[in-house]
Amino acid sequence: MMSIQFAKRMENLAASEIREILKLTERSEVISFAGGLPAPELFPVEEMKKVAVQVLEEDGRRALQYATTEGFGPLREAIAARMNRIFQTNASAQEILITSGSQQGLDFSGKVFLNEEDVVLCESPSYLGAINAFKAYNPRFIEVPTDENGMIIDELEKILAATDHVKMIYVIPDFQNPTGISWSLERREKFMEVINKYEIPVIEDNPYGELRFEGEILPSLKSLDKNGLVIYLGSFSKIFCPGFRIAWVAANQEILEKYIFVKQSADLQTSTIGQREVAKFIEMYDLDAHVEKIKDVYRKRRDLAISTMKENFPDGVKFTYPQGGLFTWVELPPHINSRDVLIKSLEYDVAFVPGESFYPDGKTYNTFRLNYSSMLEEKIVEGLERLGKVLKEFV
Amino acid sequence: MMSIQFAKRMENLAASEIREILKLTERSEVISFAGGLPAPELFPVEEMKKVAVQVLEEDGRRALQYATTEGFGPLREAIAARMNRIFQTNASAQEILITSGSQQGLDFSGKVFLNEEDVVLCESPSYLGAINAFKAYNPRFIEVPTDENGMIIDELEKILAATDHVKMIYVIPDFQNPTGISWSLERREKFMEVINKYEIPVIEDNPYGELRFEGEILPSLKSLDKNGLVIYLGSFSKIFCPGFRIAWVAANQEILEKYIFVKQSADLQTSTIGQREVAKFIEMYDLDAHVEKIKDVYRKRRDLAISTMKENFPDGVKFTYPQGGLFTWVELPPHINSRDVLIKSLEYDVAFVPGESFYPDGKTYNTFRLNYSSMLEEKIVEGLERLGKVLKEFV
Repeated sequence: MMSIQFAKRMENLAASEIREILKLTERSEVISFAGGLPAPELFPVEEMKKVAVQVLEEDGRRALQYATTEGFGPLREAIAARMNRIFQTNASAQEILITSGSQQGLDFSGKVFLNEEDVVLCESPSYLGAINAFKAYNPRFIEVPTDENGMIIDELEKILAATDHVKMIYVIPDFQNPTGISWSLERREKFMEVINKYEIPVIEDNPYGELRFEGEILPSLKSLDKNGLVIYLGSFSKIFCPGFRIAWVAANQEILEKYIFVKQSADLQTSTIGQREVAKFIEMYDLDAHVEKIKDVYRKRRDLAISTMKENFPDGVKFTYPQGGLFTWVELPPHINSRDVLIKSLEYDVAFVPGESFYPDGKTYNTFRLNYSSMLEEKIVEGLERLGKVLKEFV
Repeated sequence: MMSIQFAKRMENLAASEIREILKLTERSEVISFAGGLPAPELFPVEEMKKVAVQVLEEDGRRALQYATTEGFGPLREAIAARMNRIFQTNASAQEILITSGSQQGLDFSGKVFLNEEDVVLCESPSYLGAINAFKAYNPRFIEVPTDENGMIIDELEKILAATDHVKMIYVIPDFQNPTGISWSLERREKFMEVINKYEIPVIEDNPYGELRFEGEILPSLKSLDKNGLVIYLGSFSKIFCPGFRIAWVAANQEILEKYIFVKQSADLQTSTIGQREVAKFIEMYDLDAHVEKIKDVYRKRRDLAISTMKENFPDGVKFTYPQGGLFTWVELPPHINSRDVLIKSLEYDVAFVPGESFYPDGKTYNTFRLNYSSMLEEKIVEGLERLGKVLKEFV
């Protein structure tokens, strides 16, 4: 191999630990809590056969042709209407850009806002896919301390007062990945007060918000935003299925225009036929009813996971109680490294994701993430019982 | 609107002129030679109905689930086998990454190789979508003079000898967009000699290579590359249909690994179901026969376009004779600005793309691009006759 020189940013990019672990745990005997996969038995396979035929019959040539960068009009309309109804936003279809998964919305956010050495604020911990996306633009990260009610606003304000070049704040206020924590209404309101004062763009990532198992859906940050500072990322991956890679960015037009330029240079447009099929599914079937079905299943799995953990995890091991979403977050006593626990638990054919890659500085070692959504009930119990045994060897 | 600061790169990104013009010319009375659209009447709509149902019946849950970043195994296999057979390459499936259209391969090339102020070499003129993709990484462009046989190798060598920080060379050796020109075998061989001497990565963009109307397919640069310097971009958009946004990067493993990291941070993976449908089409039907059908139609349209131009365009207006692909390139006398011609021709409901955006420096004004692939024959004749009249007012 010759002396090819890659861009400096490539030093920051490596394989995602989640994906590498998923590869290692593809053996069918492994009970894996590592992924963030939705439950495939809930995917509307039969419905999608009818949808696919319908889309090709109605306008097959257009469904297979190039289309506009912004996205398929009727899908943008359906998304805006649905968001406004469920998350109390006030978006028009023109304020929606269809992206190839929310990961693309994260990458575009980095591309639109970040110069080298600019500062990104995020929760501590935060979603590793977002951290990876932003790292491609060589920013500095500052982690804002977070508790069971979300980002701690006093800490946020201290950081903003003391830091130059803060270009954006990345947050997941609903059932956060990795912790499962949701922000209280009070935190959301205070957060927006601070944001308005400092005029910093906010990336509100909300793939799980509809999957609330109890209580009322809280207002999205976007719905509390009077100044066009919140860029909202929504996705069909967790409420429908991820295989189409259809998601969206909702932002005011001045900002959205930048995302559209970036989309055009990045991949021209998201799959024409994929967009039309998702729109047709929404037209032909009841997506709300489908989400209810998903919630019923995940709620049971959450309950089972938490009760099994309570019974089997040793004292000194803490974990969150998620009111929705796909994940719970485990905190070990400070002297235990979750990587060591993983190595041991793989001997028992149980996998999870060590927490360190969810911290931009990678320096917290005593946490890990458990997914409870993608497994059948008996596997959840069996896997968490085994994990309990492993933990008792450490604590 | 508040004082939001965007990244510096956003100054370089604006709407693509092609797409903006396409929007203006969507009125059905306009005969548009502006797009680069494949002919929709050739899309295999009926076949894709059967394919879609088959994919969902065979393994619907997996087709709707997340999948690996690299792409669907059987599709990577099919692509490698097909490339090797048609373009004389020697790629394995492991050297193929599935991308969301070749535009994504262009964006990733910029991301993998370019630091700010690094130099990109390209043909003069070159594909504006590539120029836009690279501009997001703030490089400097140097245009290498090109004649009817492709890039002029002496000029390339002069530039390489005199220039630091040349990080990559972008070329379209087969039926170039915008000019329709193909490189001779001699140019290809000499080009690779120079490349091997300077050890510069080459992005070989080949969306049109299979659409050769006469003569033999020439060896791809990738097939002449003994040192792993050529990164090959292939696409299904022109030989099948663009609506799925399925394309690929073929490169040696060390380089491809970087593209895979970038893909993971950019959008995780290309549509699972889209990849499976394209693979299933190749399995169930005869893609080679489909390509022959496309070639027969486009050859007729090329012949008709060229003969109509010969009859109707005034002396002093030159144009290329493409042996394949979708485009011919028109050169006006130096004092005529093709933008003025466009404004006039829109009065006659005829559209094309002025050439200036195909030059990174945007300073050549007497050229324009004509697409002949996406229109029915009578429209081609009618449109080019009208354009001939317009040109006679200028020349």
